[in-house]
Amino acid sequence: MSEKPWSGRFSHDTHPEVEAFTSSVGVDARLFREDIEGSVAHARMLLCMGLLTSGEASAIIEGLQAIGEDIVSGAFRFDPKLEDVHMNIEAELTKRIGDAGKKLHTARSRNDQVATDLRLFVRANLAQVAKDLRALMGVLIAKAQENVDTIIPGMTHLQHAQPVSFAHHLLAYFEMMLRDHERLTQAVHRLNVSPLGSAALAGTPHPVDRAMTARELGFTAPGRNSIDAVSDRDFAIEAVFVCGVIMMHLSRLAEEIIIWNSQPFSFVDLPDAYCTGSSIMPQKKNPDVAELVRGKVGGVYGHLVSLLTVMKGLPLAYNRDMQEDKRPVFESIDTARACLQVMAGLVSGLTPNRESLGSSLEEGFIAATDIADYLAAKGMPFRQAHRITGEIVSHLAQGRRTFADLNLEELRAFSLLFEEDIFEAFEPATSVDRRTSYGGTSRTNVRAALGEAGAILEKLFHEK
Amino acid sequence: MSEKPWSGRFSHDTHPEVEAFTSSVGVDARLFREDIEGSVAHARMLLCMGLLTSGEASAIIEGLQAIGEDIVSGAFRFDPKLEDVHMNIEAELTKRIGDAGKKLHTARSRNDQVATDLRLFVRANLAQVAKDLRALMGVLIAKAQENVDTIIPGMTHLQHAQPVSFAHHLLAYFEMMLRDHERLTQAVHRLNVSPLGSAALAGTPHPVDRAMTARELGFTAPGRNSIDAVSDRDFAIEAVFVCGVIMMHLSRLAEEIIIWNSQPFSFVDLPDAYCTGSSIMPQKKNPDVAELVRGKVGGVYGHLVSLLTVMKGLPLAYNRDMQEDKRPVFESIDTARACLQVMAGLVSGLTPNRESLGSSLEEGFIAATDIADYLAAKGMPFRQAHRITGEIVSHLAQGRRTFADLNLEELRAFSLLFEEDIFEAFEPATSVDRRTSYGGTSRTNVRAALGEAGAILEKLFHEK
Amino acid sequence: MSEKPWSGRFSHDTHPEVEAFTSSVGVDARLFREDIEGSVAHARMLLCMGLLTSGEASAIIEGLQAIGEDIVSGAFRFDPKLEDVHMNIEAELTKRIGDAGKKLHTARSRNDQVATDLRLFVRANLAQVAKDLRALMGVLIAKAQENVDTIIPGMTHLQHAQPVSFAHHLLAYFEMMLRDHERLTQAVHRLNVSPLGSAALAGTPHPVDRAMTARELGFTAPGRNSIDAVSDRDFAIEAVFVCGVIMMHLSRLAEEIIIWNSQPFSFVDLPDAYCTGSSIMPQKKNPDVAELVRGKVGGVYGHLVSLLTVMKGLPLAYNRDMQEDKRPVFESIDTARACLQVMAGLVSGLTPNRESLGSSLEEGFIAATDIADYLAAKGMPFRQAHRITGEIVSHLAQGRRTFADLNLEELRAFSLLFEEDIFEAFEPATSVDRRTSYGGTSRTNVRAALGEAGAILEKLFHEK
Amino acid sequence: MSEKPWSGRFSHDTHPEVEAFTSSVGVDARLFREDIEGSVAHARMLLCMGLLTSGEASAIIEGLQAIGEDIVSGAFRFDPKLEDVHMNIEAELTKRIGDAGKKLHTARSRNDQVATDLRLFVRANLAQVAKDLRALMGVLIAKAQENVDTIIPGMTHLQHAQPVSFAHHLLAYFEMMLRDHERLTQAVHRLNVSPLGSAALAGTPHPVDRAMTARELGFTAPGRNSIDAVSDRDFAIEAVFVCGVIMMHLSRLAEEIIIWNSQPFSFVDLPDAYCTGSSIMPQKKNPDVAELVRGKVGGVYGHLVSLLTVMKGLPLAYNRDMQEDKRPVFESIDTARACLQVMAGLVSGLTPNRESLGSSLEEGFIAATDIADYLAAKGMPFRQAHRITGEIVSHLAQGRRTFADLNLEELRAFSLLFEEDIFEAFEPATSVDRRTSYGGTSRTNVRAALGEAGAILEKLFHEK
Repeated sequence: MSEKPWSGRFSHDTHPEVEAFTSSVGVDARLFREDIEGSVAHARMLLCMGLLTSGEASAIIEGLQAIGEDIVSGAFRFDPKLEDVHMNIEAELTKRIGDAGKKLHTARSRNDQVATDLRLFVRANLAQVAKDLRALMGVLIAKAQENVDTIIPGMTHLQHAQPVSFAHHLLAYFEMMLRDHERLTQAVHRLNVSPLGSAALAGTPHPVDRAMTARELGFTAPGRNSIDAVSDRDFAIEAVFVCGVIMMHLSRLAEEIIIWNSQPFSFVDLPDAYCTGSSIMPQKKNPDVAELVRGKVGGVYGHLVSLLTVMKGLPLAYNRDMQEDKRPVFESIDTARACLQVMAGLVSGLTPNRESLGSSLEEGFIAATDIADYLAAKGMPFRQAHRITGEIVSHLAQGRRTFADLNLEELRAFSLLFEEDIFEAFEPATSVDRRTSYGGTSRTNVRAALGEAGAILEKLFHEK
Repeated sequence: MSEKPWSGRFSHDTHPEVEAFTSSVGVDARLFREDIEGSVAHARMLLCMGLLTSGEASAIIEGLQAIGEDIVSGAFRFDPKLEDVHMNIEAELTKRIGDAGKKLHTARSRNDQVATDLRLFVRANLAQVAKDLRALMGVLIAKAQENVDTIIPGMTHLQHAQPVSFAHHLLAYFEMMLRDHERLTQAVHRLNVSPLGSAALAGTPHPVDRAMTARELGFTAPGRNSIDAVSDRDFAIEAVFVCGVIMMHLSRLAEEIIIWNSQPFSFVDLPDAYCTGSSIMPQKKNPDVAELVRGKVGGVYGHLVSLLTVMKGLPLAYNRDMQEDKRPVFESIDTARACLQVMAGLVSGLTPNRESLGSSLEEGFIAATDIADYLAAKGMPFRQAHRITGEIVSHLAQGRRTFADLNLEELRAFSLLFEEDIFEAFEPATSVDRRTSYGGTSRTNVRAALGEAGAILEKLFHEK
Repeated sequence: MSEKPWSGRFSHDTHPEVEAFTSSVGVDARLFREDIEGSVAHARMLLCMGLLTSGEASAIIEGLQAIGEDIVSGAFRFDPKLEDVHMNIEAELTKRIGDAGKKLHTARSRNDQVATDLRLFVRANLAQVAKDLRALMGVLIAKAQENVDTIIPGMTHLQHAQPVSFAHHLLAYFEMMLRDHERLTQAVHRLNVSPLGSAALAGTPHPVDRAMTARELGFTAPGRNSIDAVSDRDFAIEAVFVCGVIMMHLSRLAEEIIIWNSQPFSFVDLPDAYCTGSSIMPQKKNPDVAELVRGKVGGVYGHLVSLLTVMKGLPLAYNRDMQEDKRPVFESIDTARACLQVMAGLVSGLTPNRESLGSSLEEGFIAATDIADYLAAKGMPFRQAHRITGEIVSHLAQGRRTFADLNLEELRAFSLLFEEDIFEAFEPATSVDRRTSYGGTSRTNVRAALGEAGAILEKLFHEK
Repeated sequence: MSEKPWSGRFSHDTHPEVEAFTSSVGVDARLFREDIEGSVAHARMLLCMGLLTSGEASAIIEGLQAIGEDIVSGAFRFDPKLEDVHMNIEAELTKRIGDAGKKLHTARSRNDQVATDLRLFVRANLAQVAKDLRALMGVLIAKAQENVDTIIPGMTHLQHAQPVSFAHHLLAYFEMMLRDHERLTQAVHRLNVSPLGSAALAGTPHPVDRAMTARELGFTAPGRNSIDAVSDRDFAIEAVFVCGVIMMHLSRLAEEIIIWNSQPFSFVDLPDAYCTGSSIMPQKKNPDVAELVRGKVGGVYGHLVSLLTVMKGLPLAYNRDMQEDKRPVFESIDTARACLQVMAGLVSGLTPNRESLGSSLEEGFIAATDIADYLAAKGMPFRQAHRITGEIVSHLAQGRRTFADLNLEELRAFSLLFEEDIFEAFEPATSVDRRTSYGGTSRTNVRAALGEAGAILEKLFHEK
């Protein structure tokens, strides 16, 4: 019979197939830092409460730290037969320091231990996501600052709608990421409650000081209910959700970059260092980075579904199903971080192609709203102005011509209200600067918005 | 040619099949209150800014209010050919008050209008979800107060683990819902920004006061970026997500009630008024309400996936895909509310079956941890105490006996440390009361936790 | 006490809130045809087996048919208090024909009844999806036939890659839909097994002839296992999955149409009757139909997740959770059908814009592969030919020039292998026709593929 | 400048961050066998068509086989800088055999190459899933054969419904898996079409024999359309879907085992070798294997969502997003296989606990339908018989008694139709054997069904 920590009740060894199937150390080894951090805090508390001698506590803490170093250096090999990261470390500790190692598990169980480890991990790693987010927000501001005067065709339905400042467009993404940042911060705050000391599910008869371990580990407080402490995975789900929304935002930006970079658009030039080519087609300069970012949203959406599925209908308290919580969390955070970082590089390196933008603004009748506004300003009811402009567009489209091809005479055939000043209304810059409503695209507005965005971002940096 | 508000550019009518396919009024008619509320605020602002005369503004506002009353009374019929709730109301207004009705659309577009309406709707309806949540939290506290002394087998892996107070178990759900409530509150706060005045995507050249409409509609501020204002649906996704996590929690409670209500468990009796029978099997008293709640989590998970899918890779600004945002939001909120309400009734009416609980606590060796603790307290290392207790369990299980069937002599065959006082350790109440660590299940703890929960809930009520 | 068919065991009425919560007739009324069809077959079998007199059977069958007509005409009102479509129809039948109506439920239960109804519904409606699919496949072929000679820039990474026949591109969608059709056919065949007579879960002691009802209802056989018959919803999940893949294919086509229709591309003109305009921007002609199709994929993906979630971890046999199976099935099928139909109209009406396509083929260096192939054909290793062509592209791109701007002299500066005949390689038609490998885009191939596609489609029509 | 195969057009090296981000070899190295198999077939065809000399072909084929062996032995190290498995192998080949290695890429591109590799992988691995499925089906039959006479409480709504043979219950899972097997077989057949020779998207000008490579690789035919060949991932989605439904079925079986194994049920004993214990609670024998299987359904559902999301709205032909197709496929297949295997062991080792089942059949009024049937057989209308039986149940439930506690006198107080023979109707075996309808649970039926199931399974084995 093997020496499992629970083998008294069993008359047969675990089947090797089952050992392999249930072992999680291949995934959860990544929690080793948090596991050691949690154990050290636990040992300190046990010492304070008289449950460990100071010799035992020192041996445990130094032993754990040494194991941590060996894991980092690669000297330590995880053994799948020892199920998980917790048993691997505890077994090694006992091997190194003897029976004192076994005492570390006093007044806790793997149920509260793993919940503690995972919360520490998510807390630390969402902070990294937030950092990457702020970096990208900084890049967006910088790129916007260079491009207040770059005018692009603002689109709805992927159709030319009204000219906007490219800076204004980029700042829309800044707003999305600001919400992402707030969600991250709130998720971190909400999860920052210590499960440690909840034991298997019911608490422990040992005299423990849960407030002390909570404090040591940077939690705001110990959790109020031991059953909830070991059965809750809201924090994992919320972390994946927040990453999913970040990825959704990035997928929109990626889609735009891919479209802008297509030959017919040619709105932007991408840096060579962020593109790849084709082994067959020598002309190709593919926006692979943007495509991969767009594709990787799928993985995070999927992980969200995974976690929600795992937790559906699960009775309290701990169930082994919950072992499946780690991979979705790890991979969602990794994906969000990698994509934020690479998008920062890509956005930073992209250059608007002013020539293509200019000719695109001539096409597509993008000045139509301005023409209708022109007629309305001269007293024509808007609905009629709209109709007449629509007829001009229809007339030109049939001849594959643009507004620029019109002269005053032709215009006056549609309405005698047209005069020489109509040609100003065709100017994209005029059009942009007319939209002075708060939040609108006029360049004065955009410069103010840039100032505000910079101040907000600086505040976020200081709060960290 | 029809009289669409945009038909100038078109030389053919919309195909009837396309009219039916693109019409959304069958779904979005539900936004009529918010649409009218938004339009009234917009009209007041246009009046202040001199864009409407006071006569026009009065006609518009009174006309809208009259239409609202007709919708409520059923006197107004929505016309699918008029596409959506916005065009239906505007067309009716113009029919009733003439050209002034057309002026209402000055300085806005359907893009900012629908975003405003949906935010108002989600804000109001998440507040209702929060109210239902607080009601269920109150029921949980009340039921817990009656059941501090009701001891149930606490479970992990759906196996008898350690005895816990039923009140403690119920309070775990209180904790989940407290997090849900916080998420709701934060989601409402985050969405409470006004898109109105962002127009199609770029802002408007008209002199508008977006701060005024924001204030009138109870928003904290107008949105900072017009493109983001019309292209953002984070708030819809977040609303569905929060509902999804609520449903996940309810699905866990539902699963437990279903299992507790099975004949072999018989831990609880459900009220007749919350069960249904079978037309074939006369003995059936099925927990249909709990089953439906558990099943309905699927719908909300699905809606979350729907919305995330819709928004994946969508270029800025508005795209018609986003019309598909409403049904998921409506149905997720409806589902969450209905399930919260019906679970309040079900939990309120359930009665723990103390007889079955008592005999269940005798079976399943639930006192095993206490026996091991007993030996450990007498000086035996815990790992050895664990092993010996495991052997006792294994011995009894083979003979299909329980701890209650043991006498002292038999026990002492396993260890001479056993003495007469071991029989106290078998008492579930003793076991429960030993777990005095903060957050643990001792009845003293649970009574304190109940007081705290009550105070928290009262605070939530007052904040509303 | 109410007169529920199962009230003997109950001492309190169902709570009205519970009645509303559990009632499904608002959704499942749609199954009335199938419910009547199934009941008629059941009554005929009961007559044959001597369980009904011929008078009873006639009364039942005529009564059911009359109710069916009243439902169609709108004369019949469903009552939510009677839970579902089955109880509504049975109660009405008994009201109309007296006690014979109650005998109809002999030897069946709602568990096998609803499973039968839903299978009949899915079978009939997937057949309609298949019909719509074939119609769209026909449109693709017709549009392809007109466009064998229309050359478009074939794209990878949304970058100009190699010229292809537009017909070849359209036939790629034909292939996708052919797989969809096969999946539909197999799903229908797999589900076509009768649950009727499985009763609640265990079969029935009555002498029934399940083969007879199966035959009457067009099933291939009665199901082999009564527990599986009432607990299986694979067929519903598979129906939604097949619709989901169809929608995925349509979302790709929709995305292409949206991009092709953007001003910078202008690859296609869409029919006015399939577009909508803007109340603000007179020039807009938005591809709303394509956008909605792309957005509606979200709903079907969501329904798939819903159903999979509902069935996760559900113990056998019937559970009320399964009531949530209908809406996902109904809405997925409705969505797929509406989108297939409207896409047929849209594709049928779109016109490639040969002028834009022509100029687009000049840009984007799409002939690069052909140039490299030209050099390779003259003996240069392909990797070197690729590199030299890449350098030409890079050189031209810097000067914002295209291949068309090159003369022989300039070319020979890169390689002396270039001769006058290189200018032929620039011709898109030449490039297309060179790709003669089976399945490649040469026009000869495409014409053969069109013939084959036509024959395949005709065969599908005949098999129906 | 680096020596990427496409660097001619580029003036800057790929950024190292981008290299890491876009590299897929960490995942797709797993395709090495299929990549080599595909390349060998391609080389043979190039030889036949005169595009390679026999010396070149031999060098290539032997070189590839040697590389394959080195990968298996671990002697070969994949280099992330070489992007993917294809470039790693091709680069190594060229390093080993010189310029002939470069010629291997004639007339193909990575787009058709990776599609070929992934199809080969899915084909081979779905065949393994099918094998594991057949093994579990065999275990179900064997376990059923031992348990025709083991009677369990058949359940609906997790409530005792009617007694059924345990074998009958197990055979319901056989039916589910039979459908799974059919879906697997059809998915494999549908995907078995060769993309090789479709090149980048448009086919190739080289004289290739796609039928030959298709044949060599065991495909039924080359794909008809080159664009579809490189842009289709239906087969990957379908593979994950089929695995998802398998996992859904396993999650239901797992849930049942977990419930059956709970102390209050104790319907089954699980083998020690398939359970684990607790380091805290000595009595625990947890059904971890079943819990993990139930939890792992989440991962596969998630992967399905991932893939569907990736493919949503993706324009033709190849896009880099599609690189994200591999992990979902690999992990879904791995999960399904591991779970099928471990469930075979678990089901094989479980033992029904006849004592607990016997006492459970006494409780729960499971004979109620039989009592109502008894009264109906004596001439009472069924609705009335149902009501009277319900009243008996209600009467007994209030006194916490069971049918077994009744004597004839008490029964006759409810109806004078009761006579001595009613006590036979209480017998579970009698009840089971009465349900003789086809597919019902009578033991005669079940024995016949077992024979049929055995024959079906044997046929599946032979077809392989």
